[in-house]
Amino acid sequence: MTLTAVSVDERLRLAKDAARQVGLLDSAAKTGMLRAIADAIDSATDTIVAANADDLERGRSAEIGDALLDRLRLDATRVAALATAVREVAELPDPVGRVLDRRTLPNGLELQKVAVPFGVVGSIYEARPNVTVDIAALALRAGNAVVLRGGSAAQSSNAALVEVMRQALASQRVSPEAIQTVDDFGRDGARALMNARGLVDVLVPRGSASLIETVVTESTVPVIETGAGVVHVYLDATARDEWARKIVLNAKTQRPSVCNAVETVLVHRDAADRLLPDLLGALAGAGVRVHGDDTTAGYDPRVVAATDADWATEYLSLDLAVRVVDDLDAALDHIRRYSTHHTESIITEDEAAATRFLAEVDSAVVLVNASTRFTDGGEFGFGAEVGISTQKLHARGPMGLAELTSTKWLGRGDGQVRT
Amino acid sequence: MTLTAVSVDERLRLAKDAARQVGLLDSAAKTGMLRAIADAIDSATDTIVAANADDLERGRSAEIGDALLDRLRLDATRVAALATAVREVAELPDPVGRVLDRRTLPNGLELQKVAVPFGVVGSIYEARPNVTVDIAALALRAGNAVVLRGGSAAQSSNAALVEVMRQALASQRVSPEAIQTVDDFGRDGARALMNARGLVDVLVPRGSASLIETVVTESTVPVIETGAGVVHVYLDATARDEWARKIVLNAKTQRPSVCNAVETVLVHRDAADRLLPDLLGALAGAGVRVHGDDTTAGYDPRVVAATDADWATEYLSLDLAVRVVDDLDAALDHIRRYSTHHTESIITEDEAAATRFLAEVDSAVVLVNASTRFTDGGEFGFGAEVGISTQKLHARGPMGLAELTSTKWLGRGDGQVRT
Repeated sequence: MTLTAVSVDERLRLAKDAARQVGLLDSAAKTGMLRAIADAIDSATDTIVAANADDLERGRSAEIGDALLDRLRLDATRVAALATAVREVAELPDPVGRVLDRRTLPNGLELQKVAVPFGVVGSIYEARPNVTVDIAALALRAGNAVVLRGGSAAQSSNAALVEVMRQALASQRVSPEAIQTVDDFGRDGARALMNARGLVDVLVPRGSASLIETVVTESTVPVIETGAGVVHVYLDATARDEWARKIVLNAKTQRPSVCNAVETVLVHRDAADRLLPDLLGALAGAGVRVHGDDTTAGYDPRVVAATDADWATEYLSLDLAVRVVDDLDAALDHIRRYSTHHTESIITEDEAAATRFLAEVDSAVVLVNASTRFTDGGEFGFGAEVGISTQKLHARGPMGLAELTSTKWLGRGDGQVRT
Repeated sequence: MTLTAVSVDERLRLAKDAARQVGLLDSAAKTGMLRAIADAIDSATDTIVAANADDLERGRSAEIGDALLDRLRLDATRVAALATAVREVAELPDPVGRVLDRRTLPNGLELQKVAVPFGVVGSIYEARPNVTVDIAALALRAGNAVVLRGGSAAQSSNAALVEVMRQALASQRVSPEAIQTVDDFGRDGARALMNARGLVDVLVPRGSASLIETVVTESTVPVIETGAGVVHVYLDATARDEWARKIVLNAKTQRPSVCNAVETVLVHRDAADRLLPDLLGALAGAGVRVHGDDTTAGYDPRVVAATDADWATEYLSLDLAVRVVDDLDAALDHIRRYSTHHTESIITEDEAAATRFLAEVDSAVVLVNASTRFTDGGEFGFGAEVGISTQKLHARGPMGLAELTSTKWLGRGDGQVRT
């Protein structure tokens, strides 16, 4: 099942051909195919770990740093977790074939709008080799072929994983060409993938803001943007003390490195005296470095002065910007200016304020009295997550398998013509 | 309500600000706003017709041809029809606020996925000034602001229509900035619109294949592609004589200039003797010029020889390509190669063939025993049509008001945090 196609274009054409076969598989066949992939990953643990060792060696030589090395690392436990994740996707409900609309025209023509696979899903991502397996499994479960372009740091690991998955497809009499990589073509591979209109139906970039920006700007293939999260929690005048403290702490510290972690807390001026001393103390106790405006800094000497850049920063660390605002309007203005339209939450006992916040904040997920950390496909009950869309076209917020499908209108008539 | 903003960027910012107001209007207010636009168009008939006379004069000097002049022309009757179309949109069900999904997480957090306006809808289109009014009305009904970029041939007509509509918004205390044009900035206006990520949420090009290609290729704003239709009807071995003839004639001749008109008929070899002599005679009788392969030409001396280019041509005229194929697989191969994924129909009495055709043809609308002319928002019962999407992201097939909305997840909790 070694990749034999010699050009990027040929690989994309093979993927498109294979997509026809995968798109027609029934649910049981797709489940079987994914179970076979999971088993093959388990069986190939040694090979995968050995390939990963090459990447780690190169990474160490290039001094990429401990954090990146950790993201890159695949040991036996992590390989087993990859297989488990594929088994979970295998058992998810099939998103293909759902009837989304039904109409019978006055002349008797019967129309159904049904969910169908996209065809070929492309993904461009960075150093984490687990994305290789995750995206392939999700795309296949939704009846798509997949073309992968991972980071060069993980090239050996990705090549091994792709080879193992392709062998598993062949063992199920599914064309191995349904999984392609263009890693070995370097930047040309990425460029070809971004401009493969007619061969690739949708492109899902996953990674840093600059990677996503590049893909959105350069692609002629339609893109689903999964974006950065400059996420806000607004503590309204009536915010309950206990909820304010526990939600801000949870949203900042439970997992600071992810896009749904809070980056800026806005505090209504009338609640500042009541809430801030305790909150700032709790944050300091949890190791959070607060970047505050002057008013905030007046409550705690540990607060460092925020600059304008802080309001626009996705820290992804134990840093937090805090600003006191005059009222709800000022909070909405701030959010409008700095939000990346991912997730915002208001903590309030005031129904009118909650209603306005829900209506006026233009983000994928808008919450009242809850932690921003809930913006997650797993938490939403999707069973898996393709990413979190921050665009408004096609998908917004956590994307599950349904977002990896398109639709098609099917009509059955008995000789109807238009008059 | 004259446009005072001096730069494209300023107009786009004004549109974005106005979108907030329009997005929060309730259904009755939006209906009132659209009725006011319709009344204003009626009242301004003389002004609009006079402005249009300037465009016609320029068009005649530039010798743009009778067909284009007819598309460009607005007389009192056509202006009245524009107003009527706006009144119809005014009464359509509001697509905003529909609850599309509901989930209660195990911790009690209640989530709703609701339809919300996109924000700012951009449109780039060609010479027909009616598109100016159509797109504005549809965008506003769905709670969006709109930025228009029409063809330079209709510039005076479009300017008059935009001015009239903006005055009507102001009369309803809605910001007139919710309707913008960038016509007066020429190509720079179009370029700015295509690259206004963050200000414009979606771009809908309408017009020729080359216009759409340019927009898809150059835009960094997400695009909904409304594409050309190289539409096929396949007459299977078992096609009923009467249905074959009346469906092909209807699909070709009822309105040849539109994208859902058939351009190629494929005929199963086993049905050629039975169907073609009568069909070719009927087509000739209806003034259709048939471009056929050798087998087809053998049935009728009036058939002209088809070249490979014919299979890929959207004639939009009383021309039709006809090809005899060996079987269903050959028909599917031909369609896969030449279809623009708009609409295809099979005429058959064979359930297995119908099922395969529905499953395997990768087009927005796939029909059995019906005319391709039904691919139309009005026919589908949408009440209005934004265009017919031939892409797979966000919308596919006829687009109604629902396709001019995005979604947002709203969540209400009582202090939930993630554990």
